[in-house]
Amino acid sequence: MKYCSTCGQPVEQRIPEGDNRHRYVCTSCDTIHYQNPRIVAGTVPVWEGRILLCRRAIEPRYGYWTLPAGFMENAETTIEAAERETREEALAEVKIEGLYSIIDVPHINQVHMFYRATLKDGQFGAGEESLESRLFDVDDIPWNEISFPTVKRTLELFLTDLAQESFGVHVSDIRRPMGRD
Amino acid sequence: MKYCSTCGQPVEQRIPEGDNRHRYVCTSCDTIHYQNPRIVAGTVPVWEGRILLCRRAIEPRYGYWTLPAGFMENAETTIEAAERETREEALAEVKIEGLYSIIDVPHINQVHMFYRATLKDGQFGAGEESLESRLFDVDDIPWNEISFPTVKRTLELFLTDLAQESFGVHVSDIRRPMGRD
Repeated sequence: MKYCSTCGQPVEQRIPEGDNRHRYVCTSCDTIHYQNPRIVAGTVPVWEGRILLCRRAIEPRYGYWTLPAGFMENAETTIEAAERETREEALAEVKIEGLYSIIDVPHINQVHMFYRATLKDGQFGAGEESLESRLFDVDDIPWNEISFPTVKRTLELFLTDLAQESFGVHVSDIRRPMGRD
Repeated sequence: MKYCSTCGQPVEQRIPEGDNRHRYVCTSCDTIHYQNPRIVAGTVPVWEGRILLCRRAIEPRYGYWTLPAGFMENAETTIEAAERETREEALAEVKIEGLYSIIDVPHINQVHMFYRATLKDGQFGAGEESLESRLFDVDDIPWNEISFPTVKRTLELFLTDLAQESFGVHVSDIRRPMGRD
């Protein structure tokens, strides 16, 4: 951020009065521009004991498998965001079964939230951001081709809970790997 | 938003190619400025069967009672945000017991998340944004002076669960009241 979105003049980084963090503050109109984490919402879509994954048609992680998920938009709920992303990426309508995993990823200012879901009619396909979608048996999850750490962890938790037939809500975080930027 | 924070030139609202929503897009450098919901994180702090509330020293809802909560910051987790807000507003250190309520408030682009918590040592006070903090017996909650709908709902859920000695994770939403802006 270099310019004030309110008046177009340059911003500077400083700690506003009564605050204790550096913020972008306009040098002309004094508007403080706060920046906050974003929510990524998605689902673990299940149909007849199998899990629906999408193969990404976009970067990052082009060609890798993911659970349908994406940035939550203004004016929607987390459930609506999860349903929308599943519709857009997997062309699938789902019934939400419950909140499943919340994973904080503080080094990229994101919170990932996955809901358990069931396909409504078994129909699915490849949305614009997907090369293909496919139902995987639990023994056939392509672990070496999973797109993101939060997807891998959510799938691991899910398979453990599926084996025990008991689904909790899992809160955890993924920190920046040691020695990496 | 009137100006581009990247180059300082005017923005316009239009649907970018490949998108289906109106975004602020720079008329000069074409940067798309996405806007996303923010997370408010807080706690339900308990000490010896009583619940800690803070009386607000700031607008909105000056003088009303609230659970300690506030906007999550970049580079922290939801738990760290909840702990920090409890420290700042109630001068209290807490042990997080578990995620409790997630309430979507789509008409103001917010997601409120409350964690159950126990005071570590029974100490608390009034932070800069609080007039006072006080432990309330469950029968003495000042229902007519609660600051926000998400706080009221979280307290209602909590007292119900407390009576049953069983705490789940509650996902819900609060929509714009009919007939109001």
